[in-house]
Amino acid sequence: MLIEPGKLLKQINNPEDLRQLSPEQLFDVCTELRQFIIDTVSIHGGHFGASLGVVELTVALHYVFNTPDDQLVWDVGHQAYGHKILTERRENFHSNRKYGGLSGFPKRKESKYDTFGVGHSSTSISAALGMALASKQKGENHRQHVAIIGDGAMTGGLAFEGMNHAGVSDSNLLIILNDNCMSIDPNVGALKDYLTDITTSRTYNKLRDEVWKMLGKFNRFGRFQELASKVEGAVKGSVLKQSNLFESLNLRYFGPVDGHDINHLTHVLNDLKNIPGPKLLHCVTVKGKGFAHAEKNQTKWHAPGLFDKVTGEIHKSVPTAPQPPKYQQVFGHTILELAQENPKIMGITPAMPSGSSLNIMMEAMPDRAIDVGIAEQHAVTVSAGMATQGSTVFCNIYSTFMQRAFDQVIHDVCIQGLPVIFCLDRAGFAGADGPTHHGAYDIAYMRLIPNMIVSAPMNEQELRNLMYTASLDEFKEEGKAFTIRYPRGQGVMPEWRTPLEKITIGQGRKLRDGSDAAILTIGHIGNYATEACETLAEEGLNIGHYDMRFVKPLDEAMLHEIFQKFDKVVTVEDGCLQGGFGSAVLEFMVEHGYTAKVKRLGIPDRIVEHGSQLELQTECGFDAKGIAQSVREIAEVVFK
Amino acid sequence: MLIEPGKLLKQINNPEDLRQLSPEQLFDVCTELRQFIIDTVSIHGGHFGASLGVVELTVALHYVFNTPDDQLVWDVGHQAYGHKILTERRENFHSNRKYGGLSGFPKRKESKYDTFGVGHSSTSISAALGMALASKQKGENHRQHVAIIGDGAMTGGLAFEGMNHAGVSDSNLLIILNDNCMSIDPNVGALKDYLTDITTSRTYNKLRDEVWKMLGKFNRFGRFQELASKVEGAVKGSVLKQSNLFESLNLRYFGPVDGHDINHLTHVLNDLKNIPGPKLLHCVTVKGKGFAHAEKNQTKWHAPGLFDKVTGEIHKSVPTAPQPPKYQQVFGHTILELAQENPKIMGITPAMPSGSSLNIMMEAMPDRAIDVGIAEQHAVTVSAGMATQGSTVFCNIYSTFMQRAFDQVIHDVCIQGLPVIFCLDRAGFAGADGPTHHGAYDIAYMRLIPNMIVSAPMNEQELRNLMYTASLDEFKEEGKAFTIRYPRGQGVMPEWRTPLEKITIGQGRKLRDGSDAAILTIGHIGNYATEACETLAEEGLNIGHYDMRFVKPLDEAMLHEIFQKFDKVVTVEDGCLQGGFGSAVLEFMVEHGYTAKVKRLGIPDRIVEHGSQLELQTECGFDAKGIAQSVREIAEVVFK
Repeated sequence: MLIEPGKLLKQINNPEDLRQLSPEQLFDVCTELRQFIIDTVSIHGGHFGASLGVVELTVALHYVFNTPDDQLVWDVGHQAYGHKILTERRENFHSNRKYGGLSGFPKRKESKYDTFGVGHSSTSISAALGMALASKQKGENHRQHVAIIGDGAMTGGLAFEGMNHAGVSDSNLLIILNDNCMSIDPNVGALKDYLTDITTSRTYNKLRDEVWKMLGKFNRFGRFQELASKVEGAVKGSVLKQSNLFESLNLRYFGPVDGHDINHLTHVLNDLKNIPGPKLLHCVTVKGKGFAHAEKNQTKWHAPGLFDKVTGEIHKSVPTAPQPPKYQQVFGHTILELAQENPKIMGITPAMPSGSSLNIMMEAMPDRAIDVGIAEQHAVTVSAGMATQGSTVFCNIYSTFMQRAFDQVIHDVCIQGLPVIFCLDRAGFAGADGPTHHGAYDIAYMRLIPNMIVSAPMNEQELRNLMYTASLDEFKEEGKAFTIRYPRGQGVMPEWRTPLEKITIGQGRKLRDGSDAAILTIGHIGNYATEACETLAEEGLNIGHYDMRFVKPLDEAMLHEIFQKFDKVVTVEDGCLQGGFGSAVLEFMVEHGYTAKVKRLGIPDRIVEHGSQLELQTECGFDAKGIAQSVREIAEVVFK
Repeated sequence: MLIEPGKLLKQINNPEDLRQLSPEQLFDVCTELRQFIIDTVSIHGGHFGASLGVVELTVALHYVFNTPDDQLVWDVGHQAYGHKILTERRENFHSNRKYGGLSGFPKRKESKYDTFGVGHSSTSISAALGMALASKQKGENHRQHVAIIGDGAMTGGLAFEGMNHAGVSDSNLLIILNDNCMSIDPNVGALKDYLTDITTSRTYNKLRDEVWKMLGKFNRFGRFQELASKVEGAVKGSVLKQSNLFESLNLRYFGPVDGHDINHLTHVLNDLKNIPGPKLLHCVTVKGKGFAHAEKNQTKWHAPGLFDKVTGEIHKSVPTAPQPPKYQQVFGHTILELAQENPKIMGITPAMPSGSSLNIMMEAMPDRAIDVGIAEQHAVTVSAGMATQGSTVFCNIYSTFMQRAFDQVIHDVCIQGLPVIFCLDRAGFAGADGPTHHGAYDIAYMRLIPNMIVSAPMNEQELRNLMYTASLDEFKEEGKAFTIRYPRGQGVMPEWRTPLEKITIGQGRKLRDGSDAAILTIGHIGNYATEACETLAEEGLNIGHYDMRFVKPLDEAMLHEIFQKFDKVVTVEDGCLQGGFGSAVLEFMVEHGYTAKVKRLGIPDRIVEHGSQLELQTECGFDAKGIAQSVREIAEVVFK
């Protein structure tokens, strides 16, 4: 459904159009842009609060800077809806996050205004600095480079690494700190407290002004001139050289400014354009600004789904029958259940308490479940430190974000054999968030690490039992890390609160006997194979189905049984085909001299874009139909 | 050769012994400990400057803290020799870094005093914080947790993530910032400048004292009380709340102190023991302290090899014939050669200018070759930013450290198809540095990423040609990243300055025709296969040898040829067997219906300890003899 833009917005197809307007018109542009976002997201869904919070910033940036020659780099990208709407994508904006439509994040292939693809956090300073250094090298000294980064993203170590370099470069870099005290959940950590401090108490500038003023008064008395000048020197030293975290890193600090005052913002940005060197503007904004419900409950309204834009009621489909829970809910309730029995259990999340459902344990046991902020590396290493003291740590990280802690898993956990438990959420296709968020690689990159167990539950009961098994002391003594990966969304068991049972590490499950071919699956995706087997049975094909449950160690006894019985095998995983589960099966097969024909299904060696999980699985041929088709093809060799 | 310790040192087998001594004896303990390190390293080799720089700190920490109940976490671990010598390992210290001997880094399995295994940088704050949080959870409130981290390691983002969490924890954590202005090379970045500033100009404490003193004077005059109190408030606000980067993060800051004043150090540490909450002690030390040559040239003396401890002459073996260069040298000279012809070329290294030899280009073209400090994530993302502007970026990172930028390679480079060139140095076994430094996983984790080319040169000429090919504009248009991995150490071509020739992407080289079996190799390790083929030829076995050159894309035409001709194949790689080069060959083979017997040689699925590269290759069965033996075994099936 097309959304009707306001009068001014209708005239703006690109920033050049925006820059034709008078400063007085910008307020109305902001109002219309905000309304357009509300109108669109209420009907078409998407991320909400972040983009509302930067409406004025977005308009001001495109008004003041000569985009796309000047370059804006949005961090994470949840907040870039306004940017997209102003940069030639308004009319197509209803396709946002839909299969074949616009990406929910900035994306280089989509627009020349999207200077850097994004989705993960904390990359913008490094990326913009790289652009600035390259521009300088090419002698393009007129170009401006701006990184827009939230206070949540600022806690990621990469942002600090970028500032450490930026501060000694003489590049023309402006960092805009969009300080709204939020990640998806409320932001945490010392940096957040610091920013709140300089925002709510005396600011740097006020402080300086005040001290200056007072010293002036002293000086009028003349006789204390020497002392006053000493105080001035001392204060100057402290205030100017050392007074501010960002100035410590040699970034000139400006602000804080009200990020919703469009006129002031354009003035400040215009001034900053003429100040050379690396600098930071501290902008205070409200996530969800202009939509009361979103301002009030910022986590819920980060990505609320569809809603009534007048009442603020979030639409929920009312199921007719009991629904299976989300894997996330099963994780959240089960870790609390385990922790209530086992005092050694601790929970760690890097900034995803509500997304992972660790918030259930955080509420019940605030000392034992910790949100460490956007800091995946730290999440893993602090877990490792806890594990050295005998703690049983469940470190819950989205599959795609675990990529950022890959070294910590190898170096801090597995090399020294620490039994940390990794729950990899949103494994497989993330869906509408697209390629930056797909948990496509975890099976492959986790299984190559020694001292690592890699498992995936096919249903809720399996998740519970894997979590229980991983938490047992008898297992921990083996000195292995334990990965449990599961997808975003619903499982298959409405009655999921099953009794906890120990699973034998490395033991798969034979779900269905067969004779014509075997399907080997890992994780939730196995439910498609169940469906495929039923379809094929109706066609007269008798297919065996094995839920391998563990990618590492593989169930070798079961694999011997399979390869002795079948010479046609299909493996299915919702992970990359290179080096993944199917490859592990091949390694076993060839090592043991079997020569079955094997078809591996999974995520192919290309960037798969966004869409619903099912759309993408269908595209890649491992939905139930795709699996059935592959089995037919491989089995046909028999019938020929 | 056993080294004779001094009189006092001889009595110290563990920190308990040390703590029996009087404070007056500590100076002599330091002298003896320093001498013992000099004596040992001069004869047995190892890291040198870092441990000399922390002799006093090491003695003071073990004297003041109740180790191992109190826990010391050494960052990186180059500096932990003194720690090892004082903790039950003096008599075995001559075996340091030798096959089967002590590890050159702290290692949990080696000693209860080694609280956390290490080798990579910036992990100590997170690890020690994890220990502190777990201790607190267990009610062990008496225990102290100390992270000792250099100013170089402090630039790694993980350290910042750790501080951001530590600052809001009420854990009993002491961070000791060992500020010597060095990584292996001189430290770089804004943080380093800041530390130098607060060390060399007025320090925080001095500043505060001075201001306080002055305000006291004002107050004596009575009539300015109100003004004075306002100034005091302002100054207090600035100095105490905002005056220091670490205090900004809510870490109480102490220092700077002279890290070589053993008496002062013990006093300060004793005081800090009684100050609860997270805090940081800024210690200024000199890398190489006490050995004039090492103080003077700190990079050279980071790990100088064997030397004459009196003259400071570093022993060099004098070769009788021209030697092949190191791959590192070939990289360093070749990138400069390419950059002189191609103005788009830029070079990036995260803190390894001398190790990688990028320093050659940095000296010739300081604007175009940049050391970004210990910041692998930033190194990759800043390279991606440059690549968006058309720069041809060679980002040189040690294979093992690239693990830390895995997400940036996926998210910032490959998802958006940016043609960054990654030169992965020290791929394969690192040698004496051991498991934390082995470049064991790169083939597997790089090849699973879409839009990525993975190659490895078998000799110097190949390295040069791969670098040249990757830098060509015609290639860059494909939008693929290009990985070139090569090992530490010498190649095989004394005459290595060969003309630059373009290589067809994905094209392997047939080095030797055969009939009985084929060996498929990747990279330098192929030279062992050449040797093995010659040995086997003498035994009457006619073995084909193919240098595949590319892991991705594989040379499919060549593989078809191979599998059509041979039913016995051996693959050889100096990388992990899970998901590596051999697995890629299996994926091809099974996909195309071939059923050869394949033996894959490489690094097995366990932690391989330290030793010389050859010792470790032999242990894992892929030195020349091991390869020959595997070929015999697979070929024997024919002869039976």
